[in-house]
Amino acid sequence: MQISRYTDYAYRVLMYLAINDQHRVTMVEIAEFYGISREHLRKVVHRLASLKYIHTYTGKGGGMELSETLENINLGQVFLEFEGRNSLIDCQQTHCPLRTSCDLNRIFYKAQDAFLNEISQYTLQDVLHNSVMVNKLMNT
Amino acid sequence: MQISRYTDYAYRVLMYLAINDQHRVTMVEIAEFYGISREHLRKVVHRLASLKYIHTYTGKGGGMELSETLENINLGQVFLEFEGRNSLIDCQQTHCPLRTSCDLNRIFYKAQDAFLNEISQYTLQDVLHNSVMVNKLMNT
Repeated sequence: MQISRYTDYAYRVLMYLAINDQHRVTMVEIAEFYGISREHLRKVVHRLASLKYIHTYTGKGGGMELSETLENINLGQVFLEFEGRNSLIDCQQTHCPLRTSCDLNRIFYKAQDAFLNEISQYTLQDVLHNSVMVNKLMNT
Repeated sequence: MQISRYTDYAYRVLMYLAINDQHRVTMVEIAEFYGISREHLRKVVHRLASLKYIHTYTGKGGGMELSETLENINLGQVFLEFEGRNSLIDCQQTHCPLRTSCDLNRIFYKAQDAFLNEISQYTLQDVLHNSVMVNKLMNT
């Protein structure tokens, strides 16, 4: 079981912005830090901006920064917005003959609820408490 | 978030055998029923046999059948045996610079526990109660 790259990158962008809150951050900077493609980041950044997690600025001195405090960015909310509630098993694509009489997807749906309830107890603050502390110490 | 094809097929083989418990079932029959590749099924069937969920018989009249009752096949157990406890985010492969100071994977691990606890409350009997009933009615 793995989450999509799209969701993974959303968390990574948020984490990078949380740690680097002293300046506006560019997409190039994030791509280089994680060693990932700028193309893949673009869609994620656009979505984060449209969901108002980040502010983006164009022109000289442009870049992006978080528009929410770390404790206001809920991991479960981000998961729902990026990963969504896809079926864990795709009964439709393969036209599974059992799809009308099999309860597997309903059970997996309940299990996803349990998963979401758990991560919804945490915010970006909880994910990065070490990094943020280290960073604050380095900058004081 | 999706489970691997390997795990998906494990559940499908078990379900097919549960519904067709009046005869030994061949791999060809399962592949045709679901419209999936026999090659992909082979590894799954081998693993199900080595875990003693099924008995396989070679030669004329050969095939496979469940070696456990439906209520003894726990969905969480099957999930653990086929899907395992992989990290939902792969911090190692991309050598994420934050991997030592980020708690995301630990939080996802706890969420996976919640997921597993939920599906572990169900057995193959619960998944197929409709199908098995329909099948029993059709065969009486």
